[in-house]
Amino acid sequence: MSLDHARAKPHERLATLLAPELDAVNTVIRERMASQHAPRIPEVTAHLIEAGGKRIRPMLTLAAAQLCDYSGHHHVHLAAAVEFIHTATLLHDDVVDESGKRRGRPTANLLWDNKSSVLVGDYLFARSFQLMVETGSIRVLDILANASATIAEGEVLQLTAAQDLATLEDTYLQIVRGKTAALFSAATQVGGVIAGADEDKVQALYTYGDALGVAFQMVDDLLDWTGGAGIGKDIGDDFRERKLTLPVIRAVAAADSGEWAFWVRTIGKGRQEDGDLERALGLLQHHGTLESTRQTALNWAETAKDALAPLPAGELRDMLRDLADYVVARIT
Amino acid sequence: MSLDHARAKPHERLATLLAPELDAVNTVIRERMASQHAPRIPEVTAHLIEAGGKRIRPMLTLAAAQLCDYSGHHHVHLAAAVEFIHTATLLHDDVVDESGKRRGRPTANLLWDNKSSVLVGDYLFARSFQLMVETGSIRVLDILANASATIAEGEVLQLTAAQDLATLEDTYLQIVRGKTAALFSAATQVGGVIAGADEDKVQALYTYGDALGVAFQMVDDLLDWTGGAGIGKDIGDDFRERKLTLPVIRAVAAADSGEWAFWVRTIGKGRQEDGDLERALGLLQHHGTLESTRQTALNWAETAKDALAPLPAGELRDMLRDLADYVVARIT
Repeated sequence: MSLDHARAKPHERLATLLAPELDAVNTVIRERMASQHAPRIPEVTAHLIEAGGKRIRPMLTLAAAQLCDYSGHHHVHLAAAVEFIHTATLLHDDVVDESGKRRGRPTANLLWDNKSSVLVGDYLFARSFQLMVETGSIRVLDILANASATIAEGEVLQLTAAQDLATLEDTYLQIVRGKTAALFSAATQVGGVIAGADEDKVQALYTYGDALGVAFQMVDDLLDWTGGAGIGKDIGDDFRERKLTLPVIRAVAAADSGEWAFWVRTIGKGRQEDGDLERALGLLQHHGTLESTRQTALNWAETAKDALAPLPAGELRDMLRDLADYVVARIT
Repeated sequence: MSLDHARAKPHERLATLLAPELDAVNTVIRERMASQHAPRIPEVTAHLIEAGGKRIRPMLTLAAAQLCDYSGHHHVHLAAAVEFIHTATLLHDDVVDESGKRRGRPTANLLWDNKSSVLVGDYLFARSFQLMVETGSIRVLDILANASATIAEGEVLQLTAAQDLATLEDTYLQIVRGKTAALFSAATQVGGVIAGADEDKVQALYTYGDALGVAFQMVDDLLDWTGGAGIGKDIGDDFRERKLTLPVIRAVAAADSGEWAFWVRTIGKGRQEDGDLERALGLLQHHGTLESTRQTALNWAETAKDALAPLPAGELRDMLRDLADYVVARIT
């Protein structure tokens, strides 16, 4: 497929620029997801990994390493490790969410069973851990161990905070970091660390990945209310699943007593009726929280772009800037 | 509680000898299972960790380090890491097995939900990973990464091989390593590695842990058929769950066509009727596979004891010898 380079989306341009490394990552992924003894493992993994994800996370690692002039080959292993962690969390998420669809296809827990999703996820975590060990860098292991803990803690937090109307923006941000930003920031940071970059560059890469991830997830949460092309889910899924995201948290904070009673009934107690989704949407519009969430997401995208300053100017840095714009483009 | 030292069980004597270190391990466990933001995590973890497990695995790490004259403090972190991995696998196992009881108490997935078991398990994996990173030893990380992969692969293998009558002893051994021996051998081996022991000692510790773990699991599988005091489960659970363990694998291998049809119906197809458990037991006795499995388990215990030769003679080594005898004592 030939792409009009100037019009291609930033992640497509990144994929073109990083094509040889990305091929190497795909080779490592295919090799490492194999299991001589348990063919169920590559079956389940291939279902997800070959489902046409955009490989954003491994590209972030490759791009960060290249921006810092890395000339070794460990970034390929790290990029594969990052994608394995991502895939493992998707497998476990689908069990937790009891989802039936992911990227428009039936989920692994539906095609096989919950057991396979849990255990194959564990296997991919272990394989990613082996890949990191091969780099021989304790600092890389430290970063990814911390990211793994943040991811798991964020998921548990989401489970327990989901229907709690007292959830604050701080808690929301922590859930967002667990769901998305922790792996984004680890992906960019380890690229710099493996390249032996100066500390200011490593910190810049961390901040970029973190802010990009927060913006990404916030946009996702906003689109759940406003809809948008190709988001692959219906408006109001989070409302039906009683998940508190930023627009609702802000509307709850501004609620009068009648509105509070509405949120208690629909989210706190989960007793939803016809017309509730429309009323909820009306409240978000009334309090301006869709607009304020949009603005907050745009601010995070700006933070991401600003963070890139200490990194060498050039095509790659420009693409990372464009990626931050692209992530929020769906809501601008 | 004062114990008659000479009559105390070997793991109780080990616990007495290693009491200060074991206290330190428990402190680390309590500290690290905490989560400021997600109180569900320590709730679920405490349910399992404080349920009175014998702490065999962390004791193996502590004993191995001490046998190799270790004078640092990283063995405490490693012992806690090993216990976290064990606890995480129990949490995920209970989801996979749809168990309602563990150690005579309701399982976490029953008390909370499957979601909490999956996610808290992931959190403990991540926490154990952080503990290992703190030792700064890539070799330790390598050993535990490989053990984690073997554990997960063994579990998937068990899932897919469970009802497959073509399962061979080799596959069984691999499942046993995944279920038990991989973490036992990693626990002993990292104790030696962190102490900077000579390679022959590290290898001896690995072989001891591996053989002890295989013997331990084989005895467990045998007791599922023969019963025994305090095993906390009913005779024939594995048969009802159509799990192929060594006595059955050997009886299937020796089956005539009528017996083969019986195994195909009861395990292959899962169509079990009244009297089937008794007939199955009769077939195992007829082919002498309970006795031969018993002998194989005893041989593994001997292997474990023989492996200790390169390690310094003394009280600690004697206790590890006794532990190998104790593991098989329930079937002698």
